[in-house]
Amino acid sequence: MPDLPTVVHLSEEGPREGFQIEKHAIPTARKIELIDALADTGLRNINIVSFVNPKLVPGMADADDVVRGITPRPGVAYSGLWLNARGFERALATGRLTLEGLLTLSASEPFLTRNQNRTNEQHVADQHAMAELYRANGVPIAGGFIMAAFGCNFAGDVPVPHVVRLVGQLVEIAAQHGVRLRRVTLADTMAWATPLAIKRTVSAVRERFGAIEVGLHLHDTRGMGIANAYAGLELGVAHFDASVAGLGGCPFAGHAGAAGNVCTEDLVFLCDELGIATGVDLEGLVACAQLAEDIVGHPLPGSVMRGGSLKRLRERLVVA
Amino acid sequence: MPDLPTVVHLSEEGPREGFQIEKHAIPTARKIELIDALADTGLRNINIVSFVNPKLVPGMADADDVVRGITPRPGVAYSGLWLNARGFERALATGRLTLEGLLTLSASEPFLTRNQNRTNEQHVADQHAMAELYRANGVPIAGGFIMAAFGCNFAGDVPVPHVVRLVGQLVEIAAQHGVRLRRVTLADTMAWATPLAIKRTVSAVRERFGAIEVGLHLHDTRGMGIANAYAGLELGVAHFDASVAGLGGCPFAGHAGAAGNVCTEDLVFLCDELGIATGVDLEGLVACAQLAEDIVGHPLPGSVMRGGSLKRLRERLVVA
Repeated sequence: MPDLPTVVHLSEEGPREGFQIEKHAIPTARKIELIDALADTGLRNINIVSFVNPKLVPGMADADDVVRGITPRPGVAYSGLWLNARGFERALATGRLTLEGLLTLSASEPFLTRNQNRTNEQHVADQHAMAELYRANGVPIAGGFIMAAFGCNFAGDVPVPHVVRLVGQLVEIAAQHGVRLRRVTLADTMAWATPLAIKRTVSAVRERFGAIEVGLHLHDTRGMGIANAYAGLELGVAHFDASVAGLGGCPFAGHAGAAGNVCTEDLVFLCDELGIATGVDLEGLVACAQLAEDIVGHPLPGSVMRGGSLKRLRERLVVA
Repeated sequence: MPDLPTVVHLSEEGPREGFQIEKHAIPTARKIELIDALADTGLRNINIVSFVNPKLVPGMADADDVVRGITPRPGVAYSGLWLNARGFERALATGRLTLEGLLTLSASEPFLTRNQNRTNEQHVADQHAMAELYRANGVPIAGGFIMAAFGCNFAGDVPVPHVVRLVGQLVEIAAQHGVRLRRVTLADTMAWATPLAIKRTVSAVRERFGAIEVGLHLHDTRGMGIANAYAGLELGVAHFDASVAGLGGCPFAGHAGAAGNVCTEDLVFLCDELGIATGVDLEGLVACAQLAEDIVGHPLPGSVMRGGSLKRLRERLVVA
């Protein structure tokens, strides 16, 4: 039987990923309502906003107001995303976020150009500059992140050895700033992965860099999200990004059907059923998923929010 | 690396499962339109109607007209579902269906009672009577089918040894009618399975009955369908029921959120990406899924119909 982890750590990406892609404006108060509700479910890491150019991503123009508006729960790390020094400085200025640096590379240069208007060379230089900025501000580097690690709509399939090389490059960049890289997140940004690809890639990274923990960031555009997550679980992967109700989608992924991260409550359901601890209350999370649907005003892709948990059914059977 | 099959056989359940659960009446001509379109995709087995009580399942009242209305494609086996002698005789009377008998047991008696108003004892007697009826009409017994093999909303978890015992019972019933059982389909009727449960149950059945092929019928109510199918693929399972666009849901499963079978085009996408032959044209199937959505008039849960295949993206990249 597989090598399942006993504990899984989830990073909730719904508020950040979900609200950036909605066509109509979501009122700031409703974003805050969802974030506060999520923080009551036992989630310990919530990525709540992006500090990006409001002209390009109007749905995040109120990022500072969102951060100011939440009621922080003890023990919850609220984070934000930034892509450059200006974004980082906005995050820093809020004074309310848990700041951790991520060193980022892209397995696809064409995607990087579309997403951030950078070449690989510029992007690597950016990482050095950001590492310096983190050091200067006493912000720890939490790990590395590889975009498009399983394939790219603009560059095609990504060979496994290329991903292993990129992990090595992240290790080196970190080392040049005196940091030992402890974790790398492999992102299936455009949903090219299959469970087999997950196993091959994670195994290859593990084989070369045994001391580095692997995390997964899995988009569900082609319905493989949970299967891909389970493939990771079978290899003992214990860090996942996920998105309540399946909120989200990347505005730069190049097709209208791009979906959000793997659905948080579906992943929590799977972990519950496998006896893996997440610290998250599934029923509370299902209520958040229903709230998210109410906020965006259209159906979201989560399944357990409609199908219900088995815990409730089992309880009813015991009572009956 | 896992023991993936080289070929997967799909039985399309969408028309039968999908049109029985829709709240509003679907015009017969539109059902026929979808069935004819599905038969052009390379699918070789399509389950098109149920011969059940029209008072209980009004969506299937036009079953005979549907069978009469299709334009049979060469090489395609069109089948129907029946639960008793009366249903079987209606199927036989059409003269246009590929008839194969299935011996059926339920891992949960409470579900059986709700679904077919039968006790286990009555149901076993029914199987003997049906086997006799098949023999008398020259209809082969294609295999066995175990409902609720992974858990039941009315009876809870199903222990693996219970499923193994039921397979043994099916083997015995078949043997009493001079038939060697060659296949058994394990049905996750109410979506209780996880990939781990699939692996444990399939392995246990295999261990005890090595000569019997295992098929899977997986409902996607809690979003685990594709992950469960992949767990089967890793063990070499090569027969799956599936439902275009994820059409369907059981009207007797006891909750509003009950979903259809695992989505056919999502499963074909997975097989394509793994290099497993299905004989099905994914683009044609995606068009059928979009047609199914148009016919039912509301969004259906399939992902690849929105996210698109990777084959198209790869072709575009080669051209560019």
